[in-house]
Amino acid sequence: MTIVITAFERSPDGGKGLARDTRVRWALEEVGRPYETRLVSFAAMKEPAHLRLHPFGQIPTYEEGDLALFETGAIVLHLAQSHPGLLPDDADARARAIAWMFAALNTVEPPILDLVVAKFQEGDRPWAKERLPRVEDRIRHRLMQLAARLGDADWLDGAFSAGDLMMVSVLLRLRPSGILDEFPGLAAYVARGEARPAYQRAFAAQWAVNAAKPQAG
Amino acid sequence: MTIVITAFERSPDGGKGLARDTRVRWALEEVGRPYETRLVSFAAMKEPAHLRLHPFGQIPTYEEGDLALFETGAIVLHLAQSHPGLLPDDADARARAIAWMFAALNTVEPPILDLVVAKFQEGDRPWAKERLPRVEDRIRHRLMQLAARLGDADWLDGAFSAGDLMMVSVLLRLRPSGILDEFPGLAAYVARGEARPAYQRAFAAQWAVNAAKPQAG
Repeated sequence: MTIVITAFERSPDGGKGLARDTRVRWALEEVGRPYETRLVSFAAMKEPAHLRLHPFGQIPTYEEGDLALFETGAIVLHLAQSHPGLLPDDADARARAIAWMFAALNTVEPPILDLVVAKFQEGDRPWAKERLPRVEDRIRHRLMQLAARLGDADWLDGAFSAGDLMMVSVLLRLRPSGILDEFPGLAAYVARGEARPAYQRAFAAQWAVNAAKPQAG
Repeated sequence: MTIVITAFERSPDGGKGLARDTRVRWALEEVGRPYETRLVSFAAMKEPAHLRLHPFGQIPTYEEGDLALFETGAIVLHLAQSHPGLLPDDADARARAIAWMFAALNTVEPPILDLVVAKFQEGDRPWAKERLPRVEDRIRHRLMQLAARLGDADWLDGAFSAGDLMMVSVLLRLRPSGILDEFPGLAAYVARGEARPAYQRAFAAQWAVNAAKPQAG
């Protein structure tokens, strides 16, 4: 059955791989499933046809036969649970790997999203400059805890898993800020993720969509 | 095997049920599993013994024999996948219910967390009053989309599922702000969740811990 995902017709990051379709592309490459991509414009994302697939008007979505999914975490987990390669066989280890997926999305990403809001939605507000250090410190607090748990291990819990795929993807959003590089252990962890051939293929695929399209305005 | 969860010795909300252990208690009640609760103080949550269970120094955690889990989403999903009652049998419907769990935690909760930060961590900052309406409008945007999808259905996708458990729990955090009541369809949805006997038992259990302990300060 053909898998079809959606991605930005023109990604806000111009192809740096930070849009969330990269996470799904990466998972698809790790489990060795080919896929097709349907590109959607910002206008089309708010139209009924897309809202039927994604009630919050975002990308990516995932379609395979009768199954339609939204939410990157759910798509990656679905792929991980229905193919070998992204979750350990042992039931307890599986549950722990899934816990790292949730930790990436619900504990580590929210303060990082707040930084995106502070810079891009509120960057012109009078409070932006004074508030930014507080936002950054909340991120540092989480990264300190994450770095302490990772220690000098390659991955968060044994072999590379969907938990690492999601955590690396979330941390990548931080690179432009310089905060990631304040934590050399985490920067090396992210680099290990990026070095995986599956990530390289996913990055190249989203780059091919965006590289030829300079940002408007 | 005995299940042991952790909860606040003294919850910051004084027993309103907004601490995340309520979500896990609710799931345990829905699947009919008895459990024990170990209460931890704010000081103990930052100590090595607790950090081994929860790298980010939070509650709840979940222990069952050799398995130790953190992250509410992961704990609820683990319970839902290992017992009947919180996920549909059909594989596609299961994946969609799990998508709603991720939507609750990664799409709907982050702007709500931002409101908590704006009020309680930044409430005394000079920008607090001017910034608050922006934070609230980001929440309204998400609730509008969610209300549109829910329509006049009882639950988000067929029968009550772990996705509804998580979405209701996330929306409950909004009640003190008054924003939830701006969306009567969502307020009724949350009330349906609260009316479930399993929720009632979960609420009573956390209330019993906190009701006798007035907040310091």
